[in-house]
Amino acid sequence: MKKFINDPQQFVPEMLEGIALANPDTLRYLPEYNLLMRADSPREDKVSIVQGSGSGHEPAHVMIVGKGMLDAACPGDVFAAPPMDYVYETTKKLASPKGVLLLVNNYTGDRMAFDMGKEMAEAEGIRVEILTINDDVAVKDSLYTVGRRGVAGNFFVIKAVGAASEQGADIEELLRIGNKVNDVTRTMGVALTSCTPPAKGSTLFELGEDEIEMGVGIHGEPGRKRMKMTNADAIVDELLEAVVTDLPYSSGDDVALMINGLGGTPISELYILYRRAHQKLTEQGIKVTRSYVNEYCTSLDMAGASLTLVKLDDEIDALLGAPAEVAVRVF
Amino acid sequence: MKKFINDPQQFVPEMLEGIALANPDTLRYLPEYNLLMRADSPREDKVSIVQGSGSGHEPAHVMIVGKGMLDAACPGDVFAAPPMDYVYETTKKLASPKGVLLLVNNYTGDRMAFDMGKEMAEAEGIRVEILTINDDVAVKDSLYTVGRRGVAGNFFVIKAVGAASEQGADIEELLRIGNKVNDVTRTMGVALTSCTPPAKGSTLFELGEDEIEMGVGIHGEPGRKRMKMTNADAIVDELLEAVVTDLPYSSGDDVALMINGLGGTPISELYILYRRAHQKLTEQGIKVTRSYVNEYCTSLDMAGASLTLVKLDDEIDALLGAPAEVAVRVF
Repeated sequence: MKKFINDPQQFVPEMLEGIALANPDTLRYLPEYNLLMRADSPREDKVSIVQGSGSGHEPAHVMIVGKGMLDAACPGDVFAAPPMDYVYETTKKLASPKGVLLLVNNYTGDRMAFDMGKEMAEAEGIRVEILTINDDVAVKDSLYTVGRRGVAGNFFVIKAVGAASEQGADIEELLRIGNKVNDVTRTMGVALTSCTPPAKGSTLFELGEDEIEMGVGIHGEPGRKRMKMTNADAIVDELLEAVVTDLPYSSGDDVALMINGLGGTPISELYILYRRAHQKLTEQGIKVTRSYVNEYCTSLDMAGASLTLVKLDDEIDALLGAPAEVAVRVF
Repeated sequence: MKKFINDPQQFVPEMLEGIALANPDTLRYLPEYNLLMRADSPREDKVSIVQGSGSGHEPAHVMIVGKGMLDAACPGDVFAAPPMDYVYETTKKLASPKGVLLLVNNYTGDRMAFDMGKEMAEAEGIRVEILTINDDVAVKDSLYTVGRRGVAGNFFVIKAVGAASEQGADIEELLRIGNKVNDVTRTMGVALTSCTPPAKGSTLFELGEDEIEMGVGIHGEPGRKRMKMTNADAIVDELLEAVVTDLPYSSGDDVALMINGLGGTPISELYILYRRAHQKLTEQGIKVTRSYVNEYCTSLDMAGASLTLVKLDDEIDALLGAPAEVAVRVF
């Protein structure tokens, strides 16, 4: 394993410290709870928007705290849910008279931590609601799972409720908006390689030189199938078929199209995937009116990508287009 | 090799087509010259800013065409300078009465192509100037090289002349500003792995499991030395020592600090590098007032990073802070 790390146990705290040092005017860092929060939160006139999850998915979520996005993020260690007391303490720190909205990607560990943290905060009179995100079409509900996983589509839920909360929406309205966006958002990913968690020091799973994992999860969970490597267009066609038919998205729809890199894939390749997805959607009469090609929700250094569609209406489009400022940026 | 590509020969054109499809209102794509240009360029009241170089360094330069940055980019194939006729045709398309400023990273092939393209355009009465960028401290001038290489620091030259050109600066003024920024910008990089050019299909160079290349070039050129892998802080200390002592940067200076990912390194690790660099600079009395932590100038899928410092004064600070809009973005 060759990574830019010091002590693997300090991977998350050192990263958080770096983010805080780079944003001294806008962020506050509370190391005791892995908590990064906006320096101007909580505000009396605004519901606080919080997300936590395992680390290793950066820029989600610790680098998207800021105006128009999250008020705070409290991550766990790599691929591990935040401890419930981090969620509890974070909720207390972010308590606003308008309430705290906790966004949770749909995994057993995350749901448990946030449910408990919510209960503990409510016992102190804080208004708390939870909104669960589950955009991954790769794995269906079954007796053996907690249901669909939350993956890169969480960006759109955060963006929408982040914008609406800036505009003064109350917590019921934010639940309506967040659930509405989640309901029209679908994602599927593909891995070309495994990733290497710093504390493990070796790859999370094995994938042959000519194999890919179609439908991979952002923690390296198995997808729909392991298949032979093929070209970019064929990979996009398979991702797109799974995503489009799931909602389904139909001719006449306006959509946001996201090609999300999983951490080890350069942005040049993401645009090659984007090109094919745009062409195929256009052929099907589905109009791409918003484009997102970058890393949003990664899996450490995994080579791979995911494809997300969001069906747009005027309300969602306006919220996605509202101004926002976060740590991950170019300028 | 597992990459999201179709035909390796179509790597660059398909990427460019993807960028154009994602930005239909702001960009124009002319496939015959690998040319991506702003839809509203050339303008009578503005010097046109153009950069070309080999591809494989994305987002540089094809994804940073836009308001306040480049008017156009004409890339060559992966790691190959653009053909001189691409430079010539691009210069003609971008001809403004105020002139065309060609930005060139300091490599033999790039300089030849741009010198010839400039001559051909001048023969048709177009005002053209060339500004050469050479921020890499790893390799010194010698009889055997064309001099220092241009690497990630080119972002700051582009940002400054892009902003000044929007404000109406003439071409002499842009040369002054661009050279001034280049003169106070220094970079050094380090590779943890090689990269794999699509047409080659195998790694560009070999690096042992426990080796890193200190001072690597963005095309995998050798650096100062090959050394044993060590921790993030020790790597930053070595990069910083080389960069700080070169200008030198001194106590009391305000600087912009860039940690640039080389393509295969996740942004989490870049912030671990940033943390140490910020701490060490602060100890030396050098104040980081602008921070850039992302991928700016990559080397395909190479795991690695570079560290850049820019010494700021009021003029440079204002130009770096001016508004800009490009294809690589979060929202």
